[in-house]
Formats: sequence, C-alpha cells, structure tokens
Amino acid sequence: MKGRAPLAYELFYWPQIPGRGEFIRLALEEAGADYVDTCRLKGPGRGTKAMLSTMYGQGVAHPPFASPFLRDGDVLIGQTAAILLYLGGRLGLAPADEAGKLWTHQIQLTIADCAAEAHDTHHPVSADLYYEEQKPEAARRAKYFRDERIPKYLDWFETILDRNPAGRAHLVGEKLTYADLSLYYLVEGLKYAFPRAMARHLPGRRSVAALAVAMPQRPGIAAYLVSPRRMPFSEQDLFRHYPELDDPIG
Amino acid sequence: MKGRAPLAYELFYWPQIPGRGEFIRLALEEAGADYVDTCRLKGPGRGTKAMLSTMYGQGVAHPPFASPFLRDGDVLIGQTAAILLYLGGRLGLAPADEAGKLWTHQIQLTIADCAAEAHDTHHPVSADLYYEEQKPEAARRAKYFRDERIPKYLDWFETILDRNPAGRAHLVGEKLTYADLSLYYLVEGLKYAFPRAMARHLPGRRSVAALAVAMPQRPGIAAYLVSPRRMPFSEQDLFRHYPELDDPIG
Repeated sequence: MKGRAPLAYELFYWPQIPGRGEFIRLALEEAGADYVDTCRLKGPGRGTKAMLSTMYGQGVAHPPFASPFLRDGDVLIGQTAAILLYLGGRLGLAPADEAGKLWTHQIQLTIADCAAEAHDTHHPVSADLYYEEQKPEAARRAKYFRDERIPKYLDWFETILDRNPAGRAHLVGEKLTYADLSLYYLVEGLKYAFPRAMARHLPGRRSVAALAVAMPQRPGIAAYLVSPRRMPFSEQDLFRHYPELDDPIG
Repeated sequence: MKGRAPLAYELFYWPQIPGRGEFIRLALEEAGADYVDTCRLKGPGRGTKAMLSTMYGQGVAHPPFASPFLRDGDVLIGQTAAILLYLGGRLGLAPADEAGKLWTHQIQLTIADCAAEAHDTHHPVSADLYYEEQKPEAARRAKYFRDERIPKYLDWFETILDRNPAGRAHLVGEKLTYADLSLYYLVEGLKYAFPRAMARHLPGRRSVAALAVAMPQRPGIAAYLVSPRRMPFSEQDLFRHYPELDDPIG
C-alpha cells in the first residue's frame, strides 16, 4: 500500500475577522502546522459556502452548531476549546498527562467565557441585531464588564501564572501551551476594545502583562503577525472598539 | 503496602440550587457513583466555606474560576463540561474512542452555551445585580432567546439525534452518555423558565422531546428525582421562571 501524504488541517471560520478563529490560528501558526483557512480561499470545497454547507447540509453526521470548526481527515470538530483540546497534543502545545491536558483545557474554557462576555458587551440583547439597536443595554453591560469582570478574570489569570511551580512565564508547566497564546489574544482583544479600561487594569497584573508582551515576540507568531494571514480587529468582530463602551475620559 | 479505599468524588457547588451542578449530579447519580455534595454537608472540609476557600484560598495550585468544581483525590477540575469530560470514561457515560469522546464533549459545550444564554435572559446586564434592576433589558433579551435561540438550539439537537446512525434514542452511539442526561436537564430547565415558549417549540422536535421523557424513567434517575438530594428549581437559580419573560398569553 502506498503511503498517503498527510492532509492539511482545514479551519472553517468567517473570512474577514480574527474572531474566535484566531485562537485556533495562533496555535497552528506557532506550531508551523500545515493548514488551510478554508473560507479565505476560492475554489471547490473552499469559501464561506463550504463552511455553511458543512453546518447546514444534509448528511453531515456531526454538524457543528457554529464556527469555528476544524476538519482533520474524517474528524470534524466544533467548539473552539474542543478544537484546541484535539490539536494540543498533536501540535506539541499541551502537556502529555491527563491532569495537565485538563488544566490547560479548563483555562481555555475560562478564556472562552471571558471572550463571550466581551462579545455580549456590544450585543447584550441579541447577536441578530445591530449594535446600534441595543446601545443603551450595551452601555450598562459594558460598565459592569469593565469594572467587575475584567479585573476578576485578570486576577485569576495572574494568580494561576504566579502559582505555576515551573514559573510565571507560562500558564501550565515550563513549556508553551495553546492557553498562553489564547490569553495573549484575549488581552489584545480587550486592549483593542477597551483601551482605557485595560490601561487601568492591566499594569497591576504584571505576569499577565508580561505574557502578553512575550507571545508576539516568538518567531512563529512574529512572522504570522506581519503576514497577510493575520487580519485586523474591526467593528464586525468579537472584540469591538466603541469608545462609548470604554471608561469615560478623564 | 496496604490498599487505600477509593475516595468519593467531592462535588463543590452552591447548596440550595440545582444550577450548573445538576449536570454533574445527574451523571454521578445515573452511574451510582460514590460522591459527596460537599457544600450541602456540615463539618470540617464541608459547607460553602470549603468551596470558597478552595477558590480563593492561598496555596491551591489550580483554583477554579467558578463553581461547580470536582475533587478526585489530588485532581481538582473546574468548568462543568471539563468535569464531565473527566468523569465520562470513569463512569461509563462516554465512548472510549477519542472521536466519540470529543463529539460527546462538543455537544456538552453547546448545551453549556445554551444554558449560559438562558441565564443571561434574567441577567443581561450583570450577574452582580438583581433581576429587578435589569428588567427592561431582560424583557428584550428573553424575547430573542425564545424566538431565535431556543428553536435554533432545539433544531440542532433534533438534527444530531436524527442523524445518529445507532438511532435517535441517544445523542452519541447506541448507549447512554452524560450528554443525554444534560440535554434532558436543559430541556427541563427551559420548560421551567419558559413553559409557554417550550409548549410552542418542543412538540415539533420529537426526538428531543422523546429523550426528555425517557431520561427520568431510568431507574437511577427516577430514584434520584424523588430523593432529598434533588433540589427544586427556583428564582435563585440558573433557570428562573418570570412569567413576563415567557411568551405573552394568548
């Protein structure tokens, strides 16, 4: 039997935003993995249409509820944190033991919760409405998010970095995991969306701040960040900058 | 060396509500597992104080961000879906193969997303405020949840039940998994919170409705439901019944 060339991982996510897909992209990029960002390509089996037909087409045994999702040969996986759980060992970005794997995954799920709350600051009523249709609700929710939730999450990340017996450079053990990359991206997203609030909260969380400085200096990530594969933040995205949702000036 | 008696699983969650802890309790009860519902007991290392000191005390290497969490000997796990991922194989409530395990986990994460959205219908601004302080926002969010999100989630569960090659009695394969129990609990919670909307949406999703009827007839679950270990739904909980957040009458 002839050997089969290993297939590239196929990532499916909206083609114009970093969004939740970026958690996956950063892991794939750091590892130098062979992958295609399917919806950003043209041709058969490519484009947003390929994503939608996988989600809503007949005959897909395990249709994902939402994007991002990943195809690896016969395996189709949705839910960002589940995708990273699957990729972690394969990309060398998670511990090999069960307890370490689970702790990394638990951190990722908490990062995902924070990202979902950040999203809901601009869409507190419904993701099906425009931000402009829910501005009063957004103003109230964003205030609580800035004043109560951002510090609570940052404190937790700071605590677990500081308690890592292998040192505070990484969340888990002495080596990089996908959770480190995800925390960096979360911090970047929050800084984009809430620059004034983050200027208030981040400097006091020194270990989180240091991790967010270190990650983009890694060669694989640095190369990715200046490549056309990296898309900019925008107001069509998970993290959005509406000045009126940030701390008031002065 | 003498053998050590196996330790009971220790569940940590608020002692007066089913809440997110119920996803874990149902799995433990179905399996007849040896567990303690720590916060509902008195004594050293018991009670809500034990939960809070694990979350906020010094020296806990892997403090959970929130409850529920589970202790199994030296292992401490937070995040409901991660706890079930850990317990699934041990309790015989998940497939043994990696793809099956991940699919079960992916479904659980989607159930968790729906439960979080159900929570936010009564707390759309902040979990730190009373419902009475966010009623106008709740009314708007609840309407979209009832009209757009509940049917979208139910349709997805219906689709994956109907596409299960082993039959629509279970979400994954031919045997019970923790995801079946969790879907039953989600449906019960939604029926409690939104009885009129669920009377509108559920009957058309026949496989979901049938699963929700079958689960409480399982002997272990039936015994649990009439035991003092099962707590009633209430307006201090994840799923809350405020008639003004349900479909209007007539």
